[in-house]
Amino acid sequence: MKVGIIGGGQLAQMLALAGYPLGIHCVCLTEQTHSPASCVAPIIAGSSDDLSALQQLAAQTHVLTYENENINVSPLVELATPLRPQTNALRIAQDRWLEKCYFTQHHIPTTQYVAIASHAELRAAVDTIGYPAILKTRHFGYDGKGQHTLRSPADIATAWHALGQQPLLLENHLAFEFEVSQIAVRDAQGHSVFYPLCKNHHRAGILRYTTAPFVADPDLSTQAQHYTQTLLDALDYVGTLTVEFFVVQGQLIANEIAPRVHNSGHWTLAGAATCQFENHLRAICQLPLGSTQPKGYSAMVNCIGNEPALAAVLAIPNVSYHHYGKAPRPQRKLAHININCADADTRDQRLQQVLHLLETGY
Amino acid sequence: MKVGIIGGGQLAQMLALAGYPLGIHCVCLTEQTHSPASCVAPIIAGSSDDLSALQQLAAQTHVLTYENENINVSPLVELATPLRPQTNALRIAQDRWLEKCYFTQHHIPTTQYVAIASHAELRAAVDTIGYPAILKTRHFGYDGKGQHTLRSPADIATAWHALGQQPLLLENHLAFEFEVSQIAVRDAQGHSVFYPLCKNHHRAGILRYTTAPFVADPDLSTQAQHYTQTLLDALDYVGTLTVEFFVVQGQLIANEIAPRVHNSGHWTLAGAATCQFENHLRAICQLPLGSTQPKGYSAMVNCIGNEPALAAVLAIPNVSYHHYGKAPRPQRKLAHININCADADTRDQRLQQVLHLLETGY
Repeated sequence: MKVGIIGGGQLAQMLALAGYPLGIHCVCLTEQTHSPASCVAPIIAGSSDDLSALQQLAAQTHVLTYENENINVSPLVELATPLRPQTNALRIAQDRWLEKCYFTQHHIPTTQYVAIASHAELRAAVDTIGYPAILKTRHFGYDGKGQHTLRSPADIATAWHALGQQPLLLENHLAFEFEVSQIAVRDAQGHSVFYPLCKNHHRAGILRYTTAPFVADPDLSTQAQHYTQTLLDALDYVGTLTVEFFVVQGQLIANEIAPRVHNSGHWTLAGAATCQFENHLRAICQLPLGSTQPKGYSAMVNCIGNEPALAAVLAIPNVSYHHYGKAPRPQRKLAHININCADADTRDQRLQQVLHLLETGY
Repeated sequence: MKVGIIGGGQLAQMLALAGYPLGIHCVCLTEQTHSPASCVAPIIAGSSDDLSALQQLAAQTHVLTYENENINVSPLVELATPLRPQTNALRIAQDRWLEKCYFTQHHIPTTQYVAIASHAELRAAVDTIGYPAILKTRHFGYDGKGQHTLRSPADIATAWHALGQQPLLLENHLAFEFEVSQIAVRDAQGHSVFYPLCKNHHRAGILRYTTAPFVADPDLSTQAQHYTQTLLDALDYVGTLTVEFFVVQGQLIANEIAPRVHNSGHWTLAGAATCQFENHLRAICQLPLGSTQPKGYSAMVNCIGNEPALAAVLAIPNVSYHHYGKAPRPQRKLAHININCADADTRDQRLQQVLHLLETGY
C-alpha cells in the first residue's frame, strides 16, 4: 500500500515512520528537499499548488493525505486518487469563519464571532463584541500568527492596518482557564475511536507542552467526545481529527479543528496502545483502527528554537526523544520530548526536569 | 550521528527505524539490495567479507555494529571505526565450542559438550555423553540448522556423513521444560540494564512465539540476570546481548549467546519503556540507556513462510504488526505480530487468537 502525503515536515516524517511496520510506504510532496520527511521517505519536489506535481504523487500512490490544512483545495479536486480526510474538512479548517459557523450549525459552543470585510464592519463588530476582542485572519493562521488583540478603541486602526488586506474575523477574547484537545480517528465504515483528552500549555502562542490523559473532570471528556463525534459524522470524516477547546467555567468552548494528526497527540508515540500516526494510516488505508488506550501518564514537551543536548535529555528517566532534522530558527519546533510514567506524580516530576533542562541545558 | 550496520535484514530495518527519532541515521551493508532495511536506510551493496565495502561503510559512519554474528572477523579488525559489540563477543558467539567453554570458564551451567574433529572422536564422545546426543556444527548454525540428533549407535555414521566436513560439537540432549532468553544492554561505562525474562516457544527449530515478562519463577530471573551480568562484564560488552537458557528442573542451563538484538526481544517494541533496538543504538552511540520496564504483558508471534491478511491481524484487539518486506519462502521469518495487554489473561487470549489466525487465515 502506498500513501501520498502532501507536505514533508515532522508530521509527514512521523506518518512515514509509522507506515513501515504495516508495510505502508509513504511518498511526500514538498518544496523543501531537506525537509524532515526526506530522510525516511521518497520525496517528490514540488508545491501543493502544482497540479502536475500532485498528479505525479497521485499516480504512484493508492490514497492521498496531508499534514497541513493550509493547502489549496482547487487542484486536489482534479485528482483521481482518493484524498482522506476529504476536502470538506479542509475547506472548513482553513477558514476560521466557516469553522465557527460549522460549530454553531452543529450546536457546539464556540466564541462570539463576526466576519469582517471592511474597517466599518470592524468598528461595528467591536461595538457588538466589546473589549478585549481578537482580530484574526480567516485563512493561514497558526501558532498565534495572523492575530491582533484589541483592548481599546485606539487598537482598531492599528489592527486594521496590520491585517486589513485580507478576510478577517473578530472574536471575543475568552478568559479561559486552559486549553484541551480531543484527538479522534474515524474509519470509512463510520467507526470512531477517541484518545483521552489532552491538556495543552502554550507560551507566546505556541504549544509548549501537553499532558495526557486529562482526568480531572470526566464530564469534560464525555462532552469533548460528544462534540467531536458530531463533527466526525457530519463531515463523514476518514482519518485523525483534532478539536481544540477552551475550558471556561468548566465548560468547553470549541476553538478550532485540525483535520490531521496534531502536535498535542505526539505523546501517543510513547503513551498509547496505538499512536495517532499509525491510526491515521490505518483509517485512510481502510484497515481496522487500533486501540487508543493510554499506557500510564504521559507528557510531550516541544523543543522550540533550539535542541537540548541529546545525552542530557536521555539521562532523565522515562523520557524518549524525537528529532525532526530541521535547522534551528527562533520559534521553530525542532523536536519533542515524550515522557511516559506509571503514575501522574512521577510524570509531573519528570515534566519539571525536562522543562528545567530546556531552560538551562542548551 | 551515523551508524554503520553490517547486514540489511529485519534487525537492521528495526535498528534504522529506531534511530531516526534520536537523530541517528543508519547505513547498511548488504549484498541484497532489496533487503528489509533498503526501504528505510541507505544501502551500500557488498558482502561483509569485502574489506573495501566495509571501509566504505566505516568511512561514512561514526560506529559500526552488526545484525548477525555469522560474519568474518578478519576484515573487521582492519577498520579504524569502532565496532560495538566488539569482536571478542563475535568470536565466541560464532563458535559453539568456544561459547560453551566461555560459559564453563565463568561458572555458568551449560550442557555437556565435546569438540569433535574425526569419526573416531565422535564415537568416543558418544560413549562419554550417551544417548540421546546432538551433533552440531561449531559454526554458522541458526534456527536448528546444522544439527543432527543421535538416538542410537546406528545414527553415528549418518550424522557424521551429514556434518563431518566441518568442525563439530557433541552435546547431551536435554529434556528441557522450556527455553527463556535474557536480553540485556550494557553501555561503555559498564552500566547494564535488563529486560524481563522472555519465555520462548519453538516449532521445527524456529522461534514461533515469545511471551514476556516471564514471572512464574522470580529466582530464574535473578539467576539469568546474574549469569548475563557476568558475561557482559567479562566481555567488556557494549550493546544489546541475548543469552538463551534451557530450564531443566527449575535450573538454568545456558544454551547460546547472540551479541545483538534478538527475535525474542521484538515484543519490546510494543511492551517496554524503551525497545531493544533503541537501547542498542543508545549503547553503541554512548548515550544513556533507556528504561527496560515492561508495560503490561506482551507476546510476539513470528509469521513464518506466509503473511496473514493485514486487516485480519489488525482486527484483533491489542495487536500491532511489523512487516519486513521479504519475499515469502518456507521457514522464512516474514513479519511479527506484537500483543500488549494490561493483564496476562487477556494477553494469553489474544495470543490464542493470533495463533489461530496464523493457522487458518492466509
